[in-house]
Amino acid sequence: MNSLFIYIIDILGVISFAISGVLTARSKRMDVFGIYIIAFVTATGGGTLRDILIGNTPVGWMNNLTYVYLITGSVIFSLMFHKRLSYLRTSLFLFDTIGIGLYTMIGIQKGIEIGLHPVICVFIGTMTATFGGVIRDILCNEIPVIFRKEIYATACIVGGGAYFAFIQFPINQKIALLISGIIVITIRLFAVKFKLSIPSLYRESEPTE
Amino acid sequence: MNSLFIYIIDILGVISFAISGVLTARSKRMDVFGIYIIAFVTATGGGTLRDILIGNTPVGWMNNLTYVYLITGSVIFSLMFHKRLSYLRTSLFLFDTIGIGLYTMIGIQKGIEIGLHPVICVFIGTMTATFGGVIRDILCNEIPVIFRKEIYATACIVGGGAYFAFIQFPINQKIALLISGIIVITIRLFAVKFKLSIPSLYRESEPTE
Amino acid sequence: MNSLFIYIIDILGVISFAISGVLTARSKRMDVFGIYIIAFVTATGGGTLRDILIGNTPVGWMNNLTYVYLITGSVIFSLMFHKRLSYLRTSLFLFDTIGIGLYTMIGIQKGIEIGLHPVICVFIGTMTATFGGVIRDILCNEIPVIFRKEIYATACIVGGGAYFAFIQFPINQKIALLISGIIVITIRLFAVKFKLSIPSLYRESEPTE
Repeated sequence: MNSLFIYIIDILGVISFAISGVLTARSKRMDVFGIYIIAFVTATGGGTLRDILIGNTPVGWMNNLTYVYLITGSVIFSLMFHKRLSYLRTSLFLFDTIGIGLYTMIGIQKGIEIGLHPVICVFIGTMTATFGGVIRDILCNEIPVIFRKEIYATACIVGGGAYFAFIQFPINQKIALLISGIIVITIRLFAVKFKLSIPSLYRESEPTE
Repeated sequence: MNSLFIYIIDILGVISFAISGVLTARSKRMDVFGIYIIAFVTATGGGTLRDILIGNTPVGWMNNLTYVYLITGSVIFSLMFHKRLSYLRTSLFLFDTIGIGLYTMIGIQKGIEIGLHPVICVFIGTMTATFGGVIRDILCNEIPVIFRKEIYATACIVGGGAYFAFIQFPINQKIALLISGIIVITIRLFAVKFKLSIPSLYRESEPTE
Repeated sequence: MNSLFIYIIDILGVISFAISGVLTARSKRMDVFGIYIIAFVTATGGGTLRDILIGNTPVGWMNNLTYVYLITGSVIFSLMFHKRLSYLRTSLFLFDTIGIGLYTMIGIQKGIEIGLHPVICVFIGTMTATFGGVIRDILCNEIPVIFRKEIYATACIVGGGAYFAFIQFPINQKIALLISGIIVITIRLFAVKFKLSIPSLYRESEPTE
């Protein structure tokens, strides 16, 4: 993949994740500091957890101020134009979706670099894409939404698996990454457009908790 | 301890922890992905936190696919035979109990290897045995059950202390580990059988929260 | 700063943080083990998270039993004299406040040592001072109190920024640290005394959650 292309998607992904953090934190009536932390954690949490688990420290955002600036800007923007964010809903959803495609592939690359098994690399890719949202929900005292009902992590897992299937063949590695990222994005878009979800394990009558 | 013996107990322990994760996640009506993550975290969380804190990265399960396979198998089994799991309750409790005995001793060994003080080693052993369950409960939005009422961590602490008492004497180190592990298991079994718990700090009339 | 002075403040800070953990854990009716863990995490959590993120492992408290002894003593003291702790409220608040001033500066120093950018150093300092309380609240199943309403982290951020402003001038580094720490403490004291808080983002009529 072209590195400028990756750079732009990374930026759009961070912005989308940060804004989703702001929206969740506002719904919990947090103050500005709390909102900032939640935005930061949502945008960087998946990559940070990955870096901690593989021993890549200091973790990524500590050596690259771009993330701090982007998140700070996103928080200020979201707080100033809070009422108009709904106009951006479709764009934000799109950036977020492209972002998880990218982050899955970035995570997989990091796993490959340190020689981990493909199955573990898919774990790491999925974690990179989804655990920012998991940590956001824990800090907001909610059961993580992706554990409950959405085809979100599933898209990352399928796309990650596809990558390792592709590279069995004599195919350019960058093209394999690109196609696999597009698979993640496509599954997620279809799932949302057609309201697909994993078949429920529970009968309607089964009591909760 | 015989390494085949350790291996078998480790496998049984992972399976028991994973199934306990499935049961907790189901009670929160999570989807298949959420159930899998909770099972994974319950089975590996204690050792993962230990590895992060002592700097043993990439963390253990990343270099050993056995855990992934065992947890995947346990999740599939638990979902297929959900209604019949209650027949296995006694076996699962026994595996879990033997598991915490083993994990306490594994954690202590890791601490000794990097030259930590015995008190810190007992901390690490107890963390290895119990923090999978703590992380499971946090992800499920519950106050960790072991903070509330059970003689569980206490058994690990007593057994861990016993190990460092034993090795003051001219005793074979493996035998010391074995006896200490059995102490953990025995305390836990007695506590459950006779419904023992640490004396409550609270009067009945004292209000909660 | 004089190292004996730092040592004494560190001790008083750990004690105050540990006691605040005991009080929170008691309010959740935890047993002795749960109370101990919450006290430990409140006192060490910020520094531990910092050490994990920058790769300083084994984390600090593993190589220094002083923390274990202080926390153990604080827990025993708090449980024995629970009813009289309210007499100590002012002292505890003062120690806690001096503690966050100190911990902010310790965290900043650690960041500087490994060559991180000032902005990231301020992040790390603030995290060192505040994340023990955040982890305490998560383990107690609460939305972290510092995300909600207090001028607490803000004081750390302002003091941390002041430090990097001071060292632009030909000023002794230790004096810069001391003054910046005092700024953190002063802001926090004023905020509590005059009930200052960050202006709310929310109208009274806006619904929660």
